[in-house]
Amino acid sequence: MHDNEKNAFSSWQMNCPVSIPTNADCVTLAHGEGGRLSRKLIQERIVQTLKNETLLALNDAAQLPQVNGPLALTTDSFVVSPLFFPGGDIGSLAVYGTVNDLAVSGARPLWLTLSLIMEEGLPLVILDRVLESIAEAARQTGVQIVAGDTKVVPRGAADGLFINTAGVGELIAPIPPGAPALQEGDELIVSGSIGRHGIAILAVREELGLEPLPSSDCGSLLRPVEILREGIGNQIRCLRDATRGGVAAVLHEWAEASEMTLSIDERSLPVSPDVRGISELLGLDPLHIANEGTMVIAVKLGAGAEAVSLLQSLPESADARVIGVVKPRGIAAVTIRRTLGAEQPLDDPLGSPLPRIC
Amino acid sequence: MHDNEKNAFSSWQMNCPVSIPTNADCVTLAHGEGGRLSRKLIQERIVQTLKNETLLALNDAAQLPQVNGPLALTTDSFVVSPLFFPGGDIGSLAVYGTVNDLAVSGARPLWLTLSLIMEEGLPLVILDRVLESIAEAARQTGVQIVAGDTKVVPRGAADGLFINTAGVGELIAPIPPGAPALQEGDELIVSGSIGRHGIAILAVREELGLEPLPSSDCGSLLRPVEILREGIGNQIRCLRDATRGGVAAVLHEWAEASEMTLSIDERSLPVSPDVRGISELLGLDPLHIANEGTMVIAVKLGAGAEAVSLLQSLPESADARVIGVVKPRGIAAVTIRRTLGAEQPLDDPLGSPLPRIC
Repeated sequence: MHDNEKNAFSSWQMNCPVSIPTNADCVTLAHGEGGRLSRKLIQERIVQTLKNETLLALNDAAQLPQVNGPLALTTDSFVVSPLFFPGGDIGSLAVYGTVNDLAVSGARPLWLTLSLIMEEGLPLVILDRVLESIAEAARQTGVQIVAGDTKVVPRGAADGLFINTAGVGELIAPIPPGAPALQEGDELIVSGSIGRHGIAILAVREELGLEPLPSSDCGSLLRPVEILREGIGNQIRCLRDATRGGVAAVLHEWAEASEMTLSIDERSLPVSPDVRGISELLGLDPLHIANEGTMVIAVKLGAGAEAVSLLQSLPESADARVIGVVKPRGIAAVTIRRTLGAEQPLDDPLGSPLPRIC
Repeated sequence: MHDNEKNAFSSWQMNCPVSIPTNADCVTLAHGEGGRLSRKLIQERIVQTLKNETLLALNDAAQLPQVNGPLALTTDSFVVSPLFFPGGDIGSLAVYGTVNDLAVSGARPLWLTLSLIMEEGLPLVILDRVLESIAEAARQTGVQIVAGDTKVVPRGAADGLFINTAGVGELIAPIPPGAPALQEGDELIVSGSIGRHGIAILAVREELGLEPLPSSDCGSLLRPVEILREGIGNQIRCLRDATRGGVAAVLHEWAEASEMTLSIDERSLPVSPDVRGISELLGLDPLHIANEGTMVIAVKLGAGAEAVSLLQSLPESADARVIGVVKPRGIAAVTIRRTLGAEQPLDDPLGSPLPRIC
């Protein structure tokens, strides 16, 4: 074994739930080139693990039944580093991320595509573990992975494994009208405690040595969206999962789209003790840190309490809170009343201090 | 400017149709992190270039009208190196590749998603040029790009730019039954001269110094598929674009699915002089080299001549030929009668000598 292979293995071992033997079989360039090895990889590993009849047909495109309604279509690529983190991995993230994008858009997720870009030398046990996570997340959310692609790039041309998922869903009435419909008095809600995904990634990557490690909120928003639709469907203005840029990015996008001021109260923000502690240590604001199973919701005036009560009946949204209100546009697009002190503008950063969190 | 930036620019300049100023603005990590710079990149460059109303809404998922029939869904990631080559670039390839997968599956392409994984330091002029190619290929094939995603990874964690497209189409009767339906006597056709894409990439990448450079067949198969459907729709057994692994990989997949022997004649293969010359020089077989706008077609006994005549009426398939026939399974899955000598098995290689051709 070459030294650089040893290094590569040790970096992939980070937080990986399976141990990688020193003589592990690895992805080779030939696995990506359309010949026998490509077909073997696809048939024996990918289709075996994700098995469903559509994928088994191995056509250029999946043939799917008619959908009796309007469609939703979305895509996301995942480049998270490391590949495994407390609460999830790049595989579960790739399924939940796309399922959540469909769910918050008012759609029932139906089918996913899965495209893998692998670096030459990726241990196959890691690929297998990620595929099992994908299969489990697909089962849990009731979506089928019906089409796929695999590419292999030479060592050094990518970092381990990148995943793209695209998703098709069926839009279900009532479809939330979206941020341009926001009006004065609308209530702003988060579905759970914030900043957990970004902090979980940061804690693993920076080897902060915390015990226990903070865990990501990586998970499905299907049930929280469904309980809101059933309970107060006509009261919902908009929903958005608060991924990159965190809750603050969602609020700023909504403020821009509606030309209103979104005003939140720091004291009402659900923040877990570990997220709060690490954020303070590193000078980060949980409002700017990514979530992967937590959404922001805007509902009509008066519907906030019922929305929160519905959400709190589910374990994945037990920490839901009303965090603010929509006001006529003032001086700032988004304002926050800090625990100590007066209302002030909430920063809309150019970027974030956390690359590759999803 | 740092030395490594200079190096990065010179590698990206390879065959790039635009010149990159030494002080070019580049993609930064902040462009991928969901803050203001991300939104600016998406709104001012991506949405501006690809503009359509659905994308402009910038929702988590595109909302699309109902489709009155069964659907086709496909995905492909593109990691071609270099990004630009004679006859196309990673952008046009990403559109045509997915459009062609839908077309050969019997679907009319409707909507595409577009996901970009960019390396920190990618010059924005290159991104713009690729986006223009994407917009042009989408216009030319009548598809709309309705949803997207952008990720940025640190310098060295990817090589320039990777693109994923997923596509949704409407299946149109008659849908070709596929390779399991192949029967004795069925005729095998290629829609154009073979091996052009792989040879074009190889010639640029290896700086073979040829003049003129061989050009890729990168292009749309929509019209060739359409003319066959209209003319001999019920005579078609299966269609497949011969990408990675070339025509040989398609023949081997079909032989496996049908348990027949697919037998071709070397003398009938359309191969351009430059592809033939470079292949002989490098010891490659054009049958194993990738195409990006050329397909293999199987039609019922007796329909071959009409299929070829229809295809030859279009400039993009003017070199179509009947290349072989389906036989009961003999000793080999795929056989070839070489110009000199008897029928022999056609190799089914483990991989190919050409990584990152698409």
